[in-house]
Amino acid sequence: MPDTFTATIERSAVLADQLAAHPERYRVLTGDRPTGPLHLGHLFGSIQERVRLQDAGVESFVIIADYQVITDRDTIGDVRDHVLGAVVDYLAAGIDPARTTVFAHSAVPALNQLMLPFLSLVTEAELHRNPTVKAELADSGRALSGLLLTYPVHQAADILFCKGNLVPVGKDNAPHVEQTRVIARRFNERYAPVFPVPQVLFTAVPELPGLDGRKMSKSYGNTITLRMTADETAAAIRRARTDSDRRITFDPEHRPGVSALLTTAALCSGSTPQAVAEQVGDAGAGRLKQLTTDAVNDFLAGHRRRRAELRADPGHVLAVLRDGNRTANAIGEATLDEVRQAMGTDYGSGTQLAAASSALA
Amino acid sequence: MPDTFTATIERSAVLADQLAAHPERYRVLTGDRPTGPLHLGHLFGSIQERVRLQDAGVESFVIIADYQVITDRDTIGDVRDHVLGAVVDYLAAGIDPARTTVFAHSAVPALNQLMLPFLSLVTEAELHRNPTVKAELADSGRALSGLLLTYPVHQAADILFCKGNLVPVGKDNAPHVEQTRVIARRFNERYAPVFPVPQVLFTAVPELPGLDGRKMSKSYGNTITLRMTADETAAAIRRARTDSDRRITFDPEHRPGVSALLTTAALCSGSTPQAVAEQVGDAGAGRLKQLTTDAVNDFLAGHRRRRAELRADPGHVLAVLRDGNRTANAIGEATLDEVRQAMGTDYGSGTQLAAASSALA
Repeated sequence: MPDTFTATIERSAVLADQLAAHPERYRVLTGDRPTGPLHLGHLFGSIQERVRLQDAGVESFVIIADYQVITDRDTIGDVRDHVLGAVVDYLAAGIDPARTTVFAHSAVPALNQLMLPFLSLVTEAELHRNPTVKAELADSGRALSGLLLTYPVHQAADILFCKGNLVPVGKDNAPHVEQTRVIARRFNERYAPVFPVPQVLFTAVPELPGLDGRKMSKSYGNTITLRMTADETAAAIRRARTDSDRRITFDPEHRPGVSALLTTAALCSGSTPQAVAEQVGDAGAGRLKQLTTDAVNDFLAGHRRRRAELRADPGHVLAVLRDGNRTANAIGEATLDEVRQAMGTDYGSGTQLAAASSALA
Repeated sequence: MPDTFTATIERSAVLADQLAAHPERYRVLTGDRPTGPLHLGHLFGSIQERVRLQDAGVESFVIIADYQVITDRDTIGDVRDHVLGAVVDYLAAGIDPARTTVFAHSAVPALNQLMLPFLSLVTEAELHRNPTVKAELADSGRALSGLLLTYPVHQAADILFCKGNLVPVGKDNAPHVEQTRVIARRFNERYAPVFPVPQVLFTAVPELPGLDGRKMSKSYGNTITLRMTADETAAAIRRARTDSDRRITFDPEHRPGVSALLTTAALCSGSTPQAVAEQVGDAGAGRLKQLTTDAVNDFLAGHRRRRAELRADPGHVLAVLRDGNRTANAIGEATLDEVRQAMGTDYGSGTQLAAASSALA
């Protein structure tokens, strides 16, 4: 039973050791869906981990998955704002464009072309079984779009276009990468060994709830976005619903609002929710909110300073994305050329003259 | 009821008049799936019609749909041979690369990228309703692949990447283009009017059965391919199953083999099956086969001569495809740029600095 969850966790632990010893052997792809401004949950949940992998010497790619905005909705919204805002937040958080390629999904045709050979390697039934497709379909309350149905294949194209061999995932998300592994294996068996079969790297990232204790989500209005000012942050935290029990305790089930603030303050100050609760004691929710506001604003001060500098230099932000897109295109075209050779669909280059002569003989 | 079949036929008749008066207003895309050598059925069924439209002054595109080889099978086979062979047959049949762009599906990433926004505009249920998907699924006897399921969307990308506004179809195939029309309309309504809504042009092409009277198909072994020699053609016709009634009559239902030979001889000699039957009289199947062989070989003599010249010059054949691919890429990239502007996913170009400044403000 090599593919049980425990085995996967164990493999991932071994992998983490190998990664530390030989970071140069790995290529990692991660990304965000630019449906809105990035928030504190993104920073703790994924961006910090990307910076750690980058700084450990792993070659890194970050895809801003703009086409995925329309998998489950009709309107693409202010996609340009959210894409450029994401670039700003990545840079402010320590993503270094010299070591990490930041690019937009819609800017790399060769990546997107991989969809077609990959779609031939999966059945409709497999697409339906994908947990992301199931979950997003249930959430969307709409008819299943062709783009959402084929999501597992986009994901495979995103990871494999750069021969990513490492995919960091949260604890519940390992099955989401399985379709990519299947596609890589099938392509390699059917045509030629072009692709790595990517490994899953479990990342123990802290989970930050929204200000109301629910999942942090723009649609719940419970986020602290990275572009908020200190005053806006204070106002958002002031609006958070707590309770009238002046004794502050960490009890996510019965006191979701209070506990969410404790978790937020703890993560931002490098403490634990319990210790923060002790600190507030019976000073009530007002004191907790003040302390949380200070913790968040202190924590984000550097990010905000760098963010302001970057916003004052849009030419630089655009150049980072343009360079990333260019790098991604060069890599995507090289991979697509290998795919064409493997499939026998490489025509028209001068070096194929001998092959053409024999084909026409 | 503007979309009844009769109305479509009537529109098509009006269209044929407009086409004759103003060919320069139209762009037509047609294509083949390179699963094997092209045969006499392709020549009568579509290639001659393409040459007519081209010669009438309609800007023309011919896609060699190599990815479609693997919609309903695992093996891509000798795809290079079939693609280059198709180019040779097009040129031999009168396709002029100065007026018609011949290109391979796998060579145009910008075309293929259109799949993604287009997939967001259709539901899974619509894909399942497509008659081509249904028919090919039934024929294949396999699980439905992601590539076959999304066939209506590839077709839309193929037609719309070059803003094709005219699609010639046989009498039963009008519904096959409907999904493309829907996608064009939805994109234009949702984003900006980028695409024409292509019109269907019914073409009254003669239908050539296979040598056994069934549908002409490589898998039935009942074809006369365009690359056969005169002797191979004679041998194929000799092997055709007829009957022992020496009186030759045109009766497709009861004498499928005899009638298929009569249709073949008639089409190749510009006659009718009944007239050919008269001519043979009661001289029997042997005489019919001789007469059919002569008709086919006379008809194909010019094609074969040009084919032999082209096969002796593979560099020219490759150059035609390379140039066609280059033209298709330039057009595809221009269309994709328009799509990006319409969707707001055009980042990173220098001229977007003002937009970026406002997005980041």
